[in-house]
Amino acid sequence: MAEDRLLRVRTLLDAVRAEGRTALTAPEGKVIADAYGIAVPGEELAGDVDEAVACAARFGGPVVMKIVSPDIPHKTDAGGVVVGVEGASEVRAAFHRIVGNARAYDPRARIVGVQVQELLPPGQEVIVGAVTDPTFGKVVAFGLGGVLVEVLRDVTFRLAPVAADEALAMLDSIRAAEVLRGVRGAPPVDRWALAEQIRRVSQLVDEFPEIAEVDLNPVIATAEGAVAADIRVVLAESQPPPRRRYTRDEILTSMRRLMQPGSIAVIGASAESGKIGNSVMRNLVDGGFAGEIHPVNPRADDILGRKAYRSVTDVPGEVDVAVFAIPARFVAAALEEVGRKRIPNAVLIPSGFAETGEQGLQDELVAIAQRHGVRLLGPNIYGYYSTWQDLCATFCTPYDVKGGVALTSQSGGIGMAVLGFARTTKTGVSAIVGLGNKADLDEDDLLTWFGEDPHTECVAMHLEDLKDGRAFVAAARETIVKKPVVVLKAGRTAAGARAAGSHTGALAGDDAVYDDILRQAGVIRAPGLNEMLEYARGLPVLPTPRGENIVIITGAGGSGVLLSDAVSDNGLSLMEIPPDLDASFRAFIPPFGAAGNPVDITGGEPPSTYEATIRLGLEDPRIHALVLGYWHTIVTPPMVFAELTARVVAEFRERGIEKPVVASLAGDVEVEAACQYLYERGVVAYPYTTEKPVAVLGAKYRWARAAGLLGGRVMR
Amino acid sequence: MAEDRLLRVRTLLDAVRAEGRTALTAPEGKVIADAYGIAVPGEELAGDVDEAVACAARFGGPVVMKIVSPDIPHKTDAGGVVVGVEGASEVRAAFHRIVGNARAYDPRARIVGVQVQELLPPGQEVIVGAVTDPTFGKVVAFGLGGVLVEVLRDVTFRLAPVAADEALAMLDSIRAAEVLRGVRGAPPVDRWALAEQIRRVSQLVDEFPEIAEVDLNPVIATAEGAVAADIRVVLAESQPPPRRRYTRDEILTSMRRLMQPGSIAVIGASAESGKIGNSVMRNLVDGGFAGEIHPVNPRADDILGRKAYRSVTDVPGEVDVAVFAIPARFVAAALEEVGRKRIPNAVLIPSGFAETGEQGLQDELVAIAQRHGVRLLGPNIYGYYSTWQDLCATFCTPYDVKGGVALTSQSGGIGMAVLGFARTTKTGVSAIVGLGNKADLDEDDLLTWFGEDPHTECVAMHLEDLKDGRAFVAAARETIVKKPVVVLKAGRTAAGARAAGSHTGALAGDDAVYDDILRQAGVIRAPGLNEMLEYARGLPVLPTPRGENIVIITGAGGSGVLLSDAVSDNGLSLMEIPPDLDASFRAFIPPFGAAGNPVDITGGEPPSTYEATIRLGLEDPRIHALVLGYWHTIVTPPMVFAELTARVVAEFRERGIEKPVVASLAGDVEVEAACQYLYERGVVAYPYTTEKPVAVLGAKYRWARAAGLLGGRVMR
Repeated sequence: MAEDRLLRVRTLLDAVRAEGRTALTAPEGKVIADAYGIAVPGEELAGDVDEAVACAARFGGPVVMKIVSPDIPHKTDAGGVVVGVEGASEVRAAFHRIVGNARAYDPRARIVGVQVQELLPPGQEVIVGAVTDPTFGKVVAFGLGGVLVEVLRDVTFRLAPVAADEALAMLDSIRAAEVLRGVRGAPPVDRWALAEQIRRVSQLVDEFPEIAEVDLNPVIATAEGAVAADIRVVLAESQPPPRRRYTRDEILTSMRRLMQPGSIAVIGASAESGKIGNSVMRNLVDGGFAGEIHPVNPRADDILGRKAYRSVTDVPGEVDVAVFAIPARFVAAALEEVGRKRIPNAVLIPSGFAETGEQGLQDELVAIAQRHGVRLLGPNIYGYYSTWQDLCATFCTPYDVKGGVALTSQSGGIGMAVLGFARTTKTGVSAIVGLGNKADLDEDDLLTWFGEDPHTECVAMHLEDLKDGRAFVAAARETIVKKPVVVLKAGRTAAGARAAGSHTGALAGDDAVYDDILRQAGVIRAPGLNEMLEYARGLPVLPTPRGENIVIITGAGGSGVLLSDAVSDNGLSLMEIPPDLDASFRAFIPPFGAAGNPVDITGGEPPSTYEATIRLGLEDPRIHALVLGYWHTIVTPPMVFAELTARVVAEFRERGIEKPVVASLAGDVEVEAACQYLYERGVVAYPYTTEKPVAVLGAKYRWARAAGLLGGRVMR
Repeated sequence: MAEDRLLRVRTLLDAVRAEGRTALTAPEGKVIADAYGIAVPGEELAGDVDEAVACAARFGGPVVMKIVSPDIPHKTDAGGVVVGVEGASEVRAAFHRIVGNARAYDPRARIVGVQVQELLPPGQEVIVGAVTDPTFGKVVAFGLGGVLVEVLRDVTFRLAPVAADEALAMLDSIRAAEVLRGVRGAPPVDRWALAEQIRRVSQLVDEFPEIAEVDLNPVIATAEGAVAADIRVVLAESQPPPRRRYTRDEILTSMRRLMQPGSIAVIGASAESGKIGNSVMRNLVDGGFAGEIHPVNPRADDILGRKAYRSVTDVPGEVDVAVFAIPARFVAAALEEVGRKRIPNAVLIPSGFAETGEQGLQDELVAIAQRHGVRLLGPNIYGYYSTWQDLCATFCTPYDVKGGVALTSQSGGIGMAVLGFARTTKTGVSAIVGLGNKADLDEDDLLTWFGEDPHTECVAMHLEDLKDGRAFVAAARETIVKKPVVVLKAGRTAAGARAAGSHTGALAGDDAVYDDILRQAGVIRAPGLNEMLEYARGLPVLPTPRGENIVIITGAGGSGVLLSDAVSDNGLSLMEIPPDLDASFRAFIPPFGAAGNPVDITGGEPPSTYEATIRLGLEDPRIHALVLGYWHTIVTPPMVFAELTARVVAEFRERGIEKPVVASLAGDVEVEAACQYLYERGVVAYPYTTEKPVAVLGAKYRWARAAGLLGGRVMR
């Protein structure tokens, strides 16, 4: 059956190619639909007016008539469609009108005939399609049909092929999902039938990658089924060359030597202050790297007290990493030597390659590296940090706060912002890596490594593009079951400019596809640079929640309202407090305070009220996370609040009770020190904002859900 | 004509009231539609089946038939509507079916007959309606019709009545506005006819405030006109009592004495540390207030070296403000004395009123105050600051950075966050005012004053509700032509729970109405607390832009991409750089740098390249604002960049060229000091974020547009 299907489509596509066409006609589309079991209305091709009358008579009821011409892709625009024609005289008139319109629209169009099609019953119009995304390859799309959705762009995307349950989940991923469940008396549509249309389209483009685009538009979904009123198939002009991929083992082997090296060579090491080769040497030494550091410089015997070598090939023993700090034009020759020395990693700090238009120079490096099995980091980067190795192979300055977050950036400027932010907030870091031009190593290689790295508890990546979206998704899926992955995707708004030949294509602006597919991969997308940094800082600090019940405890009613807004904005839910728990909270707070949720302990309360309510929140197993709203008073000064909160949280942690606790501190400047104190003790706390602490908690929840830790289905 | 209209509707409504009804029948709705010139299809009421056949025959084409019963408001739900009936036998069958369905739906429903209505031509379904909002009163709504929009809630609101141009602007205020202009070959609708429907509905509810809700749903809009297929009118059960309003002069007179007092009495002043009456006295004295400060305390002769009085009536001379620092139960008696002393302002710090359920105690104060013409601030507040008077009438601590921003907060906790943020960022402040329970003075009184106050250049308000939305809008409109008004509206997500009897009502969640009407008032809505604070800090610092052309100059390509995203996210537009200007920029940057916009000067450039390009950006009159992206390098360290930028901006300012300049600094921690340096010199600069500087610029632009300073229409 599958073989028959493949053969039928293969034969058809070959025939189309043989005619030099890429757009399939409607009858050709029907052949494909039939082969894949995509439901379409009964239809026949009428070569002349009498055949049309006969066809219509065979179908019985009213019919739709459409021009068939390989030169008219958008039939409606050409006046080539008439709906609801019934009876011989109407069919005759419609035939002549359609053909006349088509001739007027494009006098040179080849007219094959008129398609006569059963008129579908009224139902919900939806669109099912597939496109070839430059980053992610075959992608399947679903949305409601009609001009309105085309205007509002309410559409969702997934990597093709999709399984049945994934296709079904797509129906709930559009903003107007409620419509499919039936609103104001309309019956719900047959969800399984609709999902099946999506699945089959995704299977089609997966099995025939040469199909660039498919549009079922509209599909009429009713309570009884889902039938595609029109199918449009477009073949690709050409296909991209396959990309070299490394196995997981290959990646881990070279990445381990990159991130945990025993021996590093610095090509272009220099004793002259102000030179990059000097900064790199100095940072390796000053950072306290315990392995071997070998300066390579043909014009020096000794640099910073270390013996210098004329060539990397002269360095004794195995070398894990060669850091390049020489001008672009000298890199290729040195890389040859690195290859001959069997060094597995070249870190290419120099710029002057693809980013300045020197693509050829960069391609040359890639060719040399592939020949020798050398992996390249960069070029055009600041270098990289591996803090647990005390390793700073950059031209910046060493960073010594060891911790759980690995940060990568495609851009050097963003890398510097990462460094400054980390330093000022004392963020615990496992690695900071510049990716630059990504001539070779990219985000999926790093993700693969960080997923395994026991020091890394969270990965945060700034990226402007992905070389291979599918490899990234695969690596992300492997990683996020173990640790959260935060992505800042820059360049969102450069999207949409891409030319598109189909409805689905027009809906698939770069960012719409990125957004859906990254979310499906379980990645936490940061809306901006500062959020990426704050998520990266906070996620390893917070324990993983065990459930969705969040309670706000606040000393300021006003903060409680804003914290509630933030909880809702971040897709979190305030626990409905059961009566017994409500009574327990009420026992601690003044009679005019509000229990419920937020629990408003009111402003003038002493430390004991904060402590008693926080204890209750941590103690009760039905509560899964706490959001604290502190109000600066003389009775409970900021540091008193911070100390009692940290103490209680630590006490419960020792008892094995770990819940995420975040806090918003409203008060005079003393709250800043209190926040830092709390943060260092595992409570994500911020002054002067109700949004940030809840946003970090929201990011933790998004990850926990994606990783399947909250009882739901794991994202795939 | 107008009189005739008013008389006809008056007569009808009286008749409906006389029957004890609040819901009008369809024929009654038609009377109102005819009176206001709201286009509706031809229709007649058929009392029996023969009349129905005769009616249908008179209209000629196909008709719609609908049940008429005062007991069935939602006709479709009751199976009481049949569409497209044609010919005697079809009309007969439909009549019996409708009546049968209605009887089955509600056996006790009184059935008046069946309405026979011309079938409207196909067109775009829209909804036009009006509701009575608890905050804003009569509000008119417009959205696209159909289940989809009901699900997506794409609807826009305005205060009724609206003028014709305002009604027209509503058509562009929905997300799916494009649909009305005609998409994919559909003709555009008759916008004037549609706007006229909106205007007339708004006029109706304005002229008859007892009408609670109006629904024209759907209105069929075509290229030829807009006809309401159905009109539903519901009367209010009761009407709210009128609210006392003060004239602008009255408000300004009392507010001037509150904010610029010559003499202040502190009722409950105390020498005992830890008491609020002590903190207030101390802060007044320590803050340096130059006017008279009179402690009032029956058990002291002298407090902090000032003579104390047994009663405020004993204080010699005129007193402008009485600050209350006594328990709630003593306030009423003391307020009587304040009234007798003819003190125009009472600042009620005590809590224990409406917020703890003691509404009666609060009402008593309001009654006393109104009797004596005393305005009340509070109760339940921290007090207020008037920095240019060195006045700190609070239990917090004095604040001495004088500047242009006036901040108000409904909640004390938020007030403390305002104070701490201002202090740590050295924000220049003109006033900080707590509003608390708003028993009397509220946001519109304060706005009226701050609009006139020459020290105030920007007003920022945290609020949870408005007592009188229309008074606020009026004050905001007066103010925003002079200075920006930022609002943080808390409690957004408590919305939607309000019961609603109409489609429009269901769409009018509290926040949807707030959002549209605040925007129309020209107010800048801050999405969160931190944004409110940052806007308040930044808006007075930035000069007003003269046009929409924004240029990004960046040393880091990566920052340029993120800054471009931020520009787009904030509704700003990157200038299309003309060739001559492009050439001018290119003259300063390396050949592989990118001109265009962002202007990417590349990372390794010396200070002179930043300076030359910034100069060009300020010099060229076609550029209206600059967004700078700095990248920390050895060649151009952070403070060097900050100094050169501040120097160039100052130099141009002296030449009379003032353009907003904002900056994002990516780098190690030295960028923090550089940002503070820049901010103090008029360049809004932030470290580790590309979003914030652009968000502040975006807020400035939103204000400049609303104030009519950028060539567009002034918001009304």
